[in-house]
Amino acid sequence: MKLPTPGPELRRIGRIALGDIIHRSAERCGDRVAVIDGERTLTHRDLDALSSRFAHHLLSVLPPRTTVATLTTNSAEMLACLFGISKAAMVWVPVNVQLTASSIEYILEHAEVEYAVVDQELLERQDIASVLDRLGITAVAIGPGDGKRVAAFAEVTAGQSEDLPDVDVCGDDLALVMYTSGTTGHPKGAMHTHLSVYSTVTANMATHLMRESDVLSGFLPLFHCAQHTMTTSVLAAGGAVALARGFTADAGLDLIERRRVTIFGGLPMMFAAMLRHERSRSTDFSSVRLALYAMAAMPRPLIEQIARTMDADVWLVTGQTEAYPITMTFRALEHPHLDANYWGISTALCETKIMDSEGRLLGPGQPGEIVHRGPNVMAGYLKDPEATAAAQRFGWHHTGDLGVIDDSGQLLFLDRTKDMIKSGGENVPSIKVESVLLAHPDVANAAVIGVPHTHWGEAIVGVVILRDQARATAADLIEHAKAHLGRFESPKEIVIVEDLPVTATGKTQKMDLRRAYQDLFGA
Amino acid sequence: MKLPTPGPELRRIGRIALGDIIHRSAERCGDRVAVIDGERTLTHRDLDALSSRFAHHLLSVLPPRTTVATLTTNSAEMLACLFGISKAAMVWVPVNVQLTASSIEYILEHAEVEYAVVDQELLERQDIASVLDRLGITAVAIGPGDGKRVAAFAEVTAGQSEDLPDVDVCGDDLALVMYTSGTTGHPKGAMHTHLSVYSTVTANMATHLMRESDVLSGFLPLFHCAQHTMTTSVLAAGGAVALARGFTADAGLDLIERRRVTIFGGLPMMFAAMLRHERSRSTDFSSVRLALYAMAAMPRPLIEQIARTMDADVWLVTGQTEAYPITMTFRALEHPHLDANYWGISTALCETKIMDSEGRLLGPGQPGEIVHRGPNVMAGYLKDPEATAAAQRFGWHHTGDLGVIDDSGQLLFLDRTKDMIKSGGENVPSIKVESVLLAHPDVANAAVIGVPHTHWGEAIVGVVILRDQARATAADLIEHAKAHLGRFESPKEIVIVEDLPVTATGKTQKMDLRRAYQDLFGA
Repeated sequence: MKLPTPGPELRRIGRIALGDIIHRSAERCGDRVAVIDGERTLTHRDLDALSSRFAHHLLSVLPPRTTVATLTTNSAEMLACLFGISKAAMVWVPVNVQLTASSIEYILEHAEVEYAVVDQELLERQDIASVLDRLGITAVAIGPGDGKRVAAFAEVTAGQSEDLPDVDVCGDDLALVMYTSGTTGHPKGAMHTHLSVYSTVTANMATHLMRESDVLSGFLPLFHCAQHTMTTSVLAAGGAVALARGFTADAGLDLIERRRVTIFGGLPMMFAAMLRHERSRSTDFSSVRLALYAMAAMPRPLIEQIARTMDADVWLVTGQTEAYPITMTFRALEHPHLDANYWGISTALCETKIMDSEGRLLGPGQPGEIVHRGPNVMAGYLKDPEATAAAQRFGWHHTGDLGVIDDSGQLLFLDRTKDMIKSGGENVPSIKVESVLLAHPDVANAAVIGVPHTHWGEAIVGVVILRDQARATAADLIEHAKAHLGRFESPKEIVIVEDLPVTATGKTQKMDLRRAYQDLFGA
Repeated sequence: MKLPTPGPELRRIGRIALGDIIHRSAERCGDRVAVIDGERTLTHRDLDALSSRFAHHLLSVLPPRTTVATLTTNSAEMLACLFGISKAAMVWVPVNVQLTASSIEYILEHAEVEYAVVDQELLERQDIASVLDRLGITAVAIGPGDGKRVAAFAEVTAGQSEDLPDVDVCGDDLALVMYTSGTTGHPKGAMHTHLSVYSTVTANMATHLMRESDVLSGFLPLFHCAQHTMTTSVLAAGGAVALARGFTADAGLDLIERRRVTIFGGLPMMFAAMLRHERSRSTDFSSVRLALYAMAAMPRPLIEQIARTMDADVWLVTGQTEAYPITMTFRALEHPHLDANYWGISTALCETKIMDSEGRLLGPGQPGEIVHRGPNVMAGYLKDPEATAAAQRFGWHHTGDLGVIDDSGQLLFLDRTKDMIKSGGENVPSIKVESVLLAHPDVANAAVIGVPHTHWGEAIVGVVILRDQARATAADLIEHAKAHLGRFESPKEIVIVEDLPVTATGKTQKMDLRRAYQDLFGA
């Protein structure tokens, strides 16, 4: 028996739409705080009204299903824009404001963006203004605008209706195109439907047992999937997000204490910086119930220090632009004997397996590529059927990450596929070498890459930041590595640097390192 | 910008399938208990394996997408069947075992059922056996079978593979057809997709903050949407269900204490019976965190008694076969001043409004029909495009219930549309008259109906069960009603009876009453 083809009424009734999330939370708990942004607070009702006003503005100036970009850092207005774009059934293109003007131009053009919301600060940058001009994009400013062609967000939303717009939208419609930082060549735009993001929202609420009393930290950028998904989820649960721009240890501690943050989500280095800060000894952490870290492994001592100091549960949460977060959680305190590179278990939403290069699913103990299936997986890369087909081969989403599932069902992350180094015919996970270097008392941070080498194919190179006053030499560190690794796994060279290139979310940009050191061995 | 038409790989990757729920929970927490059925317990891994074995059996004997019925009461095997049918991408038709053989025949024929799982006890009933025979349905027995044509469930599942079958299934596929008790004429089959039920599962997990440690009571029948959705949700969260057949106060208290039930879901009368039982004074209720009641309003004193005795939160949960539960929750203890007929607020999943008969959405304080939209709404009634169109008019699902939203956003249930009595040109909610009758100290239960009357159109009639040793007469009760109601709202007649007809879930069957008393005034 098959379902008869659904009629148009059913499409309207069964709608799944991201814009509805804030409308429905406003109906349930309109008086509760939804956003804290500096000294301002907006209730769920305020955010619902502001986003509806922006949606009505968009509908009055643009044709249906237009792509609308944000070139913005975290703010209450940015959040109202995200919901407003969805309420207008338009397509959101978040742009990482740290990209170069030429990368931003590529994305805006590739996604056929016709309208953009831009922070005043960016609007005033000549390179960005030229890009908007060249592409003929209508812009609205979060800020006063330019007094000529670019109006202020406050101006365009003034006087608009606060009712939910009556638009045709359903779960299968495109909701957003989010560009990945890209490993080589141009960034790729991961397309997600309303259903895709919505499915993660309900799963996140369930996974994190989110409730009205929750207050989520907002230090990661909203243009990134991690902060976007967690923020949307806590709002769906009737809770609040305390937005921030620019992390410092002091700002983190202040947000936790003043805003009574219950869920702090950040990079391991953020937690490390807060707990190193002398103010942490007198900070009131009693509101925090969950410390979520992402993007990188957290050393065991830091996990234990967080648990002790904050009296909170400590979880790693994973996901990627292509498989909307959260895909997996590692509940570090429940597994004190497991290595910090574990990714743990999947949420109820998505299934995770290990696959070999021929599409065979592998059993426990057998390393291979981490693959997912579930509604949170992207619909594909915009205008890139080849990359889409590659990511979707064998009916599973290919993450580009290598892992292995142990006998207890916990997944251990091994490395990015592209970060696996092939040296002298052997596969060496860069992360394994990094762990050894990081264990040296003089090492503050380390990234390990493969560099072209005539003899080895790729030679292993460690790029290292030393701690203050540390005196270890490159030779000392190579000796240390040899004592803990197989000969073929030890770095051929150690480069000591002051800084490592990182993405907006704090991940080391290994492709930049590879480019910088590609001629190290004169290949 | 529109999404390109998704390819077949994406359908496979983005799958949403009810059968996956137990497979994924088994991967996450396979060793945890999933089902308690009498003295037996099955872990998530056991239930996953048994349901896969049944799915492989179905796939070996039936063509794809066959409709498979269950004529069963709660058991671990029944639960394995539900998941197994979904894993085989077949369509589940749950049948209420309390129906007459002719109603069962109607449903099996209407849904084109080719295969049925039947409790041994039913199989041995001649009328049921004849129905199966007449329709040429292949049956398998939960029990030994008949030694001839009907094999045992244990037999057909023996030796089958325990792997998840590799079938093509996605969220838009039909998952189940569940027949409503029906008000007039034949029962109607509400069709739900995998997405529809799945969406309620994640929303239920979030709404009830379900976790691995939860143990749900299983006294309501699994063939009804309420027990089905809550059971699936607690299993998705990695928790357990303690199944039971046939409620008694003693059995309820025993289940709570022995199985450490954390979420008890039942009818108000079940809670009343347990708390009246003398054993309740020594029962250990410490495991219970949520007391969920459904199907009927709960008097305030009982709500308070539950909160006191069980030290649990007390919520009403609503939903219907056509709008898969949970649609709304009323958190009774948070609103001590609100009447017990409140339905409260919607879950994050679905939107609820009040609509007039012309399709206009009404504001606070204006009574009208309760309408929903959201992914949990049925795709329609099987083979009944007229009833489907009526339920879907104006792009909202029509519940047939009347309500009003108060200024604080809480929804108050007024009556079933069809239970609104039109007497002398005035609308009288039957529930209003019932509340007054129930407030009389001699009344144990009351149902109020409209009966054809030459003068009044419909005359209001109260059908009443008196308490033991009560001595009130019909005339006394009419007097009592007149003292608390408008003249046009007071019953013209009171009939005192020993019993009221109820559905499998304990709702009064008013259509049976209307039929029984249709000639009371000789119309």
